[in-house]
Amino acid sequence: MIRVGIYGYGNLGRGVESAIRQNNDMELVAVFTRRSPESVKIRTQGVAVCHADDIESYKDKIDVLILCGGSATDLPVQTPEMAKHFNVIDSFDTHARIPEHFANVNASAKESGKIAIISVGWDPGMFSLMRAYGIAILPEGKDYTFWGKGVSQGHSDAIRRVDGVLDGKQYTIPVDSALDAVRSGANPDLTVREKHIRECFVVAKEGADKARIEKEIKEMKNYFADYDTTVHFISKEELDRDHSGIPHGGFVIRSGKTGLNGEHNHIIEYSLKLDSNPEFTSSVLVAYARAAHRLNSEGQSGCKTVLDIAPSYLTQASKEELYKTLL
Amino acid sequence: MIRVGIYGYGNLGRGVESAIRQNNDMELVAVFTRRSPESVKIRTQGVAVCHADDIESYKDKIDVLILCGGSATDLPVQTPEMAKHFNVIDSFDTHARIPEHFANVNASAKESGKIAIISVGWDPGMFSLMRAYGIAILPEGKDYTFWGKGVSQGHSDAIRRVDGVLDGKQYTIPVDSALDAVRSGANPDLTVREKHIRECFVVAKEGADKARIEKEIKEMKNYFADYDTTVHFISKEELDRDHSGIPHGGFVIRSGKTGLNGEHNHIIEYSLKLDSNPEFTSSVLVAYARAAHRLNSEGQSGCKTVLDIAPSYLTQASKEELYKTLL
Repeated sequence: MIRVGIYGYGNLGRGVESAIRQNNDMELVAVFTRRSPESVKIRTQGVAVCHADDIESYKDKIDVLILCGGSATDLPVQTPEMAKHFNVIDSFDTHARIPEHFANVNASAKESGKIAIISVGWDPGMFSLMRAYGIAILPEGKDYTFWGKGVSQGHSDAIRRVDGVLDGKQYTIPVDSALDAVRSGANPDLTVREKHIRECFVVAKEGADKARIEKEIKEMKNYFADYDTTVHFISKEELDRDHSGIPHGGFVIRSGKTGLNGEHNHIIEYSLKLDSNPEFTSSVLVAYARAAHRLNSEGQSGCKTVLDIAPSYLTQASKEELYKTLL
Repeated sequence: MIRVGIYGYGNLGRGVESAIRQNNDMELVAVFTRRSPESVKIRTQGVAVCHADDIESYKDKIDVLILCGGSATDLPVQTPEMAKHFNVIDSFDTHARIPEHFANVNASAKESGKIAIISVGWDPGMFSLMRAYGIAILPEGKDYTFWGKGVSQGHSDAIRRVDGVLDGKQYTIPVDSALDAVRSGANPDLTVREKHIRECFVVAKEGADKARIEKEIKEMKNYFADYDTTVHFISKEELDRDHSGIPHGGFVIRSGKTGLNGEHNHIIEYSLKLDSNPEFTSSVLVAYARAAHRLNSEGQSGCKTVLDIAPSYLTQASKEELYKTLL
């Protein structure tokens, strides 16, 4: 049994908790929180909820620690710190800061002799893998990533910061005609506006000026100004009833040519349609937790990414079983 | 530069030849053939065409040898034999015999200290990878592989063996309603007949009994009897004009559930739409040739499959570049 700890118990931590139950070679040992442990009710009976300050006492009781904090302020500190004592997995997703995060985590993990796998999930994560396979196989080509249809947490937060807004949710939606153009092999150059539209569902405070709210959202720099954005005003009841889920997904498409004169087109398409973004991300984290344990058991250490790990490390089945059943 | 040799110069060998030209860290050193070398015209200037009997003299001139023979009789002999002297890649695709082939090749490559990567291509190959990732991430789920639309060489050969048939081509086509059912998350149990249809284009010899030919095709055991098959009689000119390509493709779909009570559905879909089946397979072979060279340069030896190789080994870019650009 691989003994797993969860650090941070939000949507992602809860997702990891339920994903562990789907993998019978794993057991959840403890959940660590910075809140008061008594205030945190988890959903697995008989598992300890501990304060994060006490985590070092679990050094010999946990094979892999899955870090479920945020990328803005939690993980840049927690992952290098925890890699001093544990094999760790995180979902660090601030793309531009990955090299810096990698270096910090690698230094810790090299020193402790542990394995750390960073930026695990679907983007970064499975989508990164697909971009890598695509480039390797079709070097004369182009890749395209589309996101959605799904809820963007950052854009939903931005809506909620607009004066007069009580609540709101934003969906990122790929533009069908752009997807079709890419699938045709035409290798189009697409602007930000041509690739995605943004659809907002907004609950206005009583008496708020809806026209002004709509204008402010649509003109918001870095979030909405570069997109075709639609704003729907709905009631709080409608928002809670129809928009409480956290679906997401997207597409990675590699379009390339082969042949002496580039006469043959090929399209590789990978897509995800996810009812729950955090639960899918958690499921990826748990698969890579297995890999971290195995790599470290083999004597490896340091920081890795999904690009550095062979697929056979992720599955419960032995290599022999995989050769027989999946190849 | 990675120095590559090609063993066998059919459709696959020609595909490897053109794929090497798309990768500027590789050079083609020689093509080996069992035919008379003078009779083989290759398309790369200045590259030697040698008889297969002379291959051992190239031991120190080639970093990776790509075996482009067939799975029925060539590769079971050639891959273990060549792994005694070279890092090798093959596209062995007789699924049921992969464990046996692996064992033979592994014994050779372990002894010589070389790397062999077998069963490289898209199925087995990329589709195997996708099945592995899918099972690892969504253990409570089901996977589905559909092939096509594309030309099946084996079924086309079977048509041509029917008495009275001059020429013919068979397309394997996935059934749209089956694909849609899988994508809905319903996890249907599908029969062979429900998943694929077979469409045949047949040129009959003059005076042949077309009704009898059609009946013989449709009732042919192991090939057509279990499928809904359509037979179109066309002229040799039409066949050559409209059906001379070798397109193929397909879909691997993993459908699974997460959540404490399996309340969330997720669909992972990978699809290929290929203008040229052999050229795409060749492109995958060449990417794994790079991996074989790197793995062996690191001191590794023995037989591997696509499941055992981290994606970062496949790309020209360094790990640092990959982290910066693909994660």
